[in-house]
Amino acid sequence: MSSAADRPLAAGAPAPASVIVIGTGLIGTSVALALRPQGVTVWLADSDPAAARLAADIGAGTVLPGDVPAGPPPGGPADVAVLAVPPQAVAPALARAQAAGLARWYTDVASVKTLPVRQARAAGCDMASFVPGHPLSGRERSGPAAARADLFLGRPWVICPDPPVPAAGLAAIGALARTCGAEPAEVSAAGHDRWVALVSHAPHVLSAAMAARLADASDGTLSLAGQGLRDVTRIAAGDTGLWTQILAANAAPVADVLAAVAADLAAVAEALADTAQATGASPGTGPGTGAGGGPDLKVLAALLEQGGAGVARIPGKRGAPARAEAAVQVVIPDRPGELARLFQAAGEAGVNIEDIGIEHSPGLPVGVAELTVHPEAVGRLTEALAANGWPVRR
Amino acid sequence: MSSAADRPLAAGAPAPASVIVIGTGLIGTSVALALRPQGVTVWLADSDPAAARLAADIGAGTVLPGDVPAGPPPGGPADVAVLAVPPQAVAPALARAQAAGLARWYTDVASVKTLPVRQARAAGCDMASFVPGHPLSGRERSGPAAARADLFLGRPWVICPDPPVPAAGLAAIGALARTCGAEPAEVSAAGHDRWVALVSHAPHVLSAAMAARLADASDGTLSLAGQGLRDVTRIAAGDTGLWTQILAANAAPVADVLAAVAADLAAVAEALADTAQATGASPGTGPGTGAGGGPDLKVLAALLEQGGAGVARIPGKRGAPARAEAAVQVVIPDRPGELARLFQAAGEAGVNIEDIGIEHSPGLPVGVAELTVHPEAVGRLTEALAANGWPVRR
Repeated sequence: MSSAADRPLAAGAPAPASVIVIGTGLIGTSVALALRPQGVTVWLADSDPAAARLAADIGAGTVLPGDVPAGPPPGGPADVAVLAVPPQAVAPALARAQAAGLARWYTDVASVKTLPVRQARAAGCDMASFVPGHPLSGRERSGPAAARADLFLGRPWVICPDPPVPAAGLAAIGALARTCGAEPAEVSAAGHDRWVALVSHAPHVLSAAMAARLADASDGTLSLAGQGLRDVTRIAAGDTGLWTQILAANAAPVADVLAAVAADLAAVAEALADTAQATGASPGTGPGTGAGGGPDLKVLAALLEQGGAGVARIPGKRGAPARAEAAVQVVIPDRPGELARLFQAAGEAGVNIEDIGIEHSPGLPVGVAELTVHPEAVGRLTEALAANGWPVRR
Repeated sequence: MSSAADRPLAAGAPAPASVIVIGTGLIGTSVALALRPQGVTVWLADSDPAAARLAADIGAGTVLPGDVPAGPPPGGPADVAVLAVPPQAVAPALARAQAAGLARWYTDVASVKTLPVRQARAAGCDMASFVPGHPLSGRERSGPAAARADLFLGRPWVICPDPPVPAAGLAAIGALARTCGAEPAEVSAAGHDRWVALVSHAPHVLSAAMAARLADASDGTLSLAGQGLRDVTRIAAGDTGLWTQILAANAAPVADVLAAVAADLAAVAEALADTAQATGASPGTGPGTGAGGGPDLKVLAALLEQGGAGVARIPGKRGAPARAEAAVQVVIPDRPGELARLFQAAGEAGVNIEDIGIEHSPGLPVGVAELTVHPEAVGRLTEALAANGWPVRR
């Protein structure tokens, strides 16, 4: 384990040789587990000795004494010290870690960035060796036992360089992120905080607000719960103390999103209450609300439409469902070679298939392939497949 | 395929011999697919002939002409006609189906119950052969291609008997539900509507309200989206037209839940805005918000706590995570026999293990078993395992 000071860590810097992880919770231990197979020497420290020991027991590295070690590990300062502690704890831990000379570069993993940067500066930390960071990964479980070496695989790892961080520091933390399998991305601290307010912090509060309604519900009501409710409320099971800190530390951007959502929900609630009153509290008399309803329901329909548009914008397979207008559905027998035949027929028709989903109900000898193509290719593909004898539906 | 009229359908009634499914969307086609392997003759009808044909192509049954067939299928009236159409379409379809004498019993699958019952009565339908129902199953995808034979497996299927439905009708629809693999449960129509407002309809609007905020977000913002956001917004990808109908048809109960959630979110937004103001817009000066914060954050912390309590009440493995205070974590080598050894040691210590979860990060030779036990057994279990050489953590 060599000290980082001897080695150049410019752009395209190699993986760090040694890393100290301070805080062996979910994220810290996962960083350690991700680094170990890449040949990185990893040192561990935590204010809870049992947590550090558990992390070491599952192979995350070697425990150093103290919540923040009092001096560099055997062999000299590490290349990078990762402060994997709650947002409010970053600045104090950074000050102590820098005073102890633990590493060449320091980074954190807190899910807010403006606050720790401001607090670090106020605490008189060396801002030239601190490169704030945030791997966009998590689980609703916490602690070292929940850690996973693949937690960061393909996920963004935001780095918020704050002057006077030199390029070498940026490169070192970028290399750390890449060694963990993540994709480093540079964003300003303020930009990062606005972004995560929308995609992470506000959704957490919504999830909790929905789940909170269940706390006093009857058992009968809860017996009807399905996957939709489970998905909406899953992240509400997270560590409430940590989340209170995170949300408080990103208060203004989160407040903006929540106020807007609250207003939308209040408007829909009012529209539905009006609808209920208009269709009458006298059962058996009125014909009920028409499909699409009166002006009251416009606000509801608009929100649902906007919601559909929003979901479709989330990158990735699950978030961007094939739009029906560009999808062709084909019934295929469940046997080897059928998909190859299908793709061959599509290829011969000159149709490029953008995406494919297979729906296969258990126990049936057939499935349905949903082929996503450019809208203008739908007709051509449908004809080609029908001509080849495939049962097809636009 | 015999007519139901010849056969007794009392309590403990056998599976229906023949069923007509009117509406071959996701639910109708899934009902048909679930019934077929049980030897039920299934007839299909849909206002979209291509949808009915696709359902038939994947093995759901035999297509009859017309959106609602003009007369009974070959062999005489079916045992049950399932009206798998949107809520507003149930009463008109029921009136036509009854006039055509399609079946002995009629049921629907709409996710609201008060409205179709009221409309059916207003339309002069025969209420003695109509047994309203609602299988609590769904997907964010729609149409026959998304249908699955196992959609109802182990799920509740609510039946809302409304006088003057005789016991034989109830038994027939109960048998239909059980034949599909579901668990029939009797609930009043009004009770059902209040229950699903909480566990299904309001969560749908929340999901949409969060997703709607993403519609105009920057690509950079969306690149940070993770599994939490995907889960919270997944159901917002559902059929917006159908959902507008469902929500309008259950307007008052849904409005109540949404108004309460909107008020909670508005209160948290206000508390966070106050926090942001108190900690100052002058970066670098203040120490930031303390952990737990001032009185402003009490409302936030309380909502998150209440949310955690709510999630824990959802039945099923994912919804009721082991509480940390009653969990013991043990590092176990990833090889055969280790879990057996573990359970043996626990058993010898007289500790009953309530639940077990295994965390195993890919590529590691060890995993972590999390054993959930009664709080008073934690100490005993920990000692017994440590004495047997297991690395253990409370």
